[in-house]
Amino acid sequence: MEFDLIESLRRGTHLDRADVALGIGDDAALLEVPEGTQLVACTDTMVAGVHFLAGTPAEDLGWKSLAVNLSDLAAMGAVPMWALLALTLPDGDPDFVTRFGAGFARLARMHGVALVGGDTTQGPLAITVTALGSVPRGKALTRAGARPGDAVFVTGNLGDAAAALGLRRRGATPPPELVERMQRPVPRVAAGLALRGVATACIDVSDGLVADLGHVCTGSRVGAELDASEMPVSATLAAACDAVAGRDLALSGGDDYELCFTVPAARAAEAAAALAGVACRATRIGRIVAGAGVRVLDSRGQPIVLAHPGWEHFA
Amino acid sequence: MEFDLIESLRRGTHLDRADVALGIGDDAALLEVPEGTQLVACTDTMVAGVHFLAGTPAEDLGWKSLAVNLSDLAAMGAVPMWALLALTLPDGDPDFVTRFGAGFARLARMHGVALVGGDTTQGPLAITVTALGSVPRGKALTRAGARPGDAVFVTGNLGDAAAALGLRRRGATPPPELVERMQRPVPRVAAGLALRGVATACIDVSDGLVADLGHVCTGSRVGAELDASEMPVSATLAAACDAVAGRDLALSGGDDYELCFTVPAARAAEAAAALAGVACRATRIGRIVAGAGVRVLDSRGQPIVLAHPGWEHFA
Repeated sequence: MEFDLIESLRRGTHLDRADVALGIGDDAALLEVPEGTQLVACTDTMVAGVHFLAGTPAEDLGWKSLAVNLSDLAAMGAVPMWALLALTLPDGDPDFVTRFGAGFARLARMHGVALVGGDTTQGPLAITVTALGSVPRGKALTRAGARPGDAVFVTGNLGDAAAALGLRRRGATPPPELVERMQRPVPRVAAGLALRGVATACIDVSDGLVADLGHVCTGSRVGAELDASEMPVSATLAAACDAVAGRDLALSGGDDYELCFTVPAARAAEAAAALAGVACRATRIGRIVAGAGVRVLDSRGQPIVLAHPGWEHFA
Repeated sequence: MEFDLIESLRRGTHLDRADVALGIGDDAALLEVPEGTQLVACTDTMVAGVHFLAGTPAEDLGWKSLAVNLSDLAAMGAVPMWALLALTLPDGDPDFVTRFGAGFARLARMHGVALVGGDTTQGPLAITVTALGSVPRGKALTRAGARPGDAVFVTGNLGDAAAALGLRRRGATPPPELVERMQRPVPRVAAGLALRGVATACIDVSDGLVADLGHVCTGSRVGAELDASEMPVSATLAAACDAVAGRDLALSGGDDYELCFTVPAARAAEAAAALAGVACRATRIGRIVAGAGVRVLDSRGQPIVLAHPGWEHFA
C-alpha cells in the first residue's frame, strides 16, 4: 500500500526530470546533482493542531507542506529539484490522499519538482517534507552576509496569514484572501534566484519578521532597525483590523513565507529591479546597524516594544 | 528552541565533514556531492505505537530512526554522508532529547554521518529521518537486476526482531539479545559497499523476507524460490520457539534490516568472500526463477503456504 500511495502522489508531480536516475520504488532514489553546484537540503514538519487547524482542506495541506520547504530553498537562492514526503495518516482515507496529492502536485509542477521518495505510516496526522535543490557553488544566499549600512527589504505583504489564523481562532470568518495566504503560501523561488549576487543575506519569514531578521543579525553579527511605518500590509488586512494591529501582525505574525533580505544601500535599486524582473514587489523596511538584535522604530524614530516578538517553538 | 535542540543533537554527530559547506543554522544545508557520483536519498518515519512500543528507551529510538534509513542506503550500495531529522515530541522533555540524541549520534559517528538539518515540532511522538549518501555513477544496487539462475542470499540472521515484538505483545520478557535486535538494528552499510559489482539486485529486509524478495521479483520481472530449511536463525531465537515458528518468523517477520541480494550462481563464492572481508556472514537461501512471485519450499521441494507473508502498511 505504501508504494501505491506514494506512487499515486508521484504521478501528479513533475515526471520527466532527466536528473532522476531512479525514483520511487526502490530502497532509495538515485539523483544527479549538476556539476559545479552545491546540494541544498531542508526538512519541515506540519502537525495537525499545531501547524494547521482541524478541517483544513487536504489540498491545502499538500500544497503548504511542500511550499514551506520550497520557501527555505528560495531563501538560499536555490533551484528546487526533488522532494521526499513522509505522510502519517490516521487512516488510509483514499479521498484525503487524492486531494492531498493534488495540492502537493500542483505546486510541485509549478516548480518542476519531482517526488522521488516517501514513506506512509499510520498515526496522528503529520506531514514531513524534505526538499532538495541546487545552487552554483559559493552563490547561495545565507544569513551570514549582512553588513552595517545594508538596507533591509521584504518581498510582498506581511501579516495576512497570522490575521487569518487569529480570526479563525476567535471563531470569526476571515476574508478569503487572508485564508488563501495562510493555507496556500507562494514560495518566493524566482525572487530567491533573482537575488543571487545582489543580496548580502536572506531568510524566509516563517516565525515572524522580527524573529527571522533576528536570525540574520545573529548569523551576520550585526543589529537591525525596522521602520514600523513602512511595513507592507495588504488592503485586505488593512480593512480587517486597525493600523496598529496590522503593523504588529506584519512585524511578528509569522507564516508569511516572504523573503527578508539585505543589500548594500548603493545596490538597493538594482535589487528592486532584479525582483521587478520576476514580477515580485519588495519594500525597504529598515537598515542593518552595528551591534546586535532588532529594534523596531516608530515614524519619529522612537523604539516600539512588541508584545509578541515572534512565534517560538515549545520550550 | 528548535535551533538549540537540533544544534545540541548535531554536536554529537560527525562534525568535521569537509563536504558540509553549511550545516544547521540557516534555512537549508549546503552540501558537496562528490563528482562522478549519484546522490542517494531516502526517508523513513517511526510513529509511537505503530513502529515502536510505548516505553522504548529514547536512546534506542534515536539509534533506530537513523538505522532504518542507513539500511536503505546500504541496500543501494551507498556511502552514508548526511542526515536530516524531523522530531515531533509531545513536550520538550530535555532528558528525552538528550538520550534520543545520544543514540542517534552514536550510530551517526560510526558511519561518519553529519546531521545537517532538522525540524522540531510539538505533537504526538514521531521521528522522520532523511538520509543522504552517494554511490559512483551507475554502480548502485537496485531491485531490478536479478536474473533466473541467480542465487538468493541474506546477511546475518532473520526473525529476531519479530520474535521480540511478538513476545512483548504477549506480555512476556524476550531474551535481551532479541530486544537488542529489535531496538538497535545494525545497518549493513559495509556489506552493501562490498556487494557493489557483484550483486545483481539487493533490498533490505524491513517488511519481511518473502515480502521484500517479492519486491525484487517485481522490480526484476522474475520469480524466486526460497528454501525454508535454509533460513538463518540465531541460537537465541531457536531456543525461544519451536523450529516451525522460528522459520516462519525468519520468512515473514520483518524489521530485520539484513540485506537480501542476488548474485549469478557462478559468482556466489566471490560474493561470500567479499562479505567475509567485512566480517559479514551471508546464507544462500534460494534461487531466482523465471516467472513471478516468491514460492517457499520445504526440504522436499514442496510449497509451503505462510499465514502472514509479510507486514503490510495500513490499507
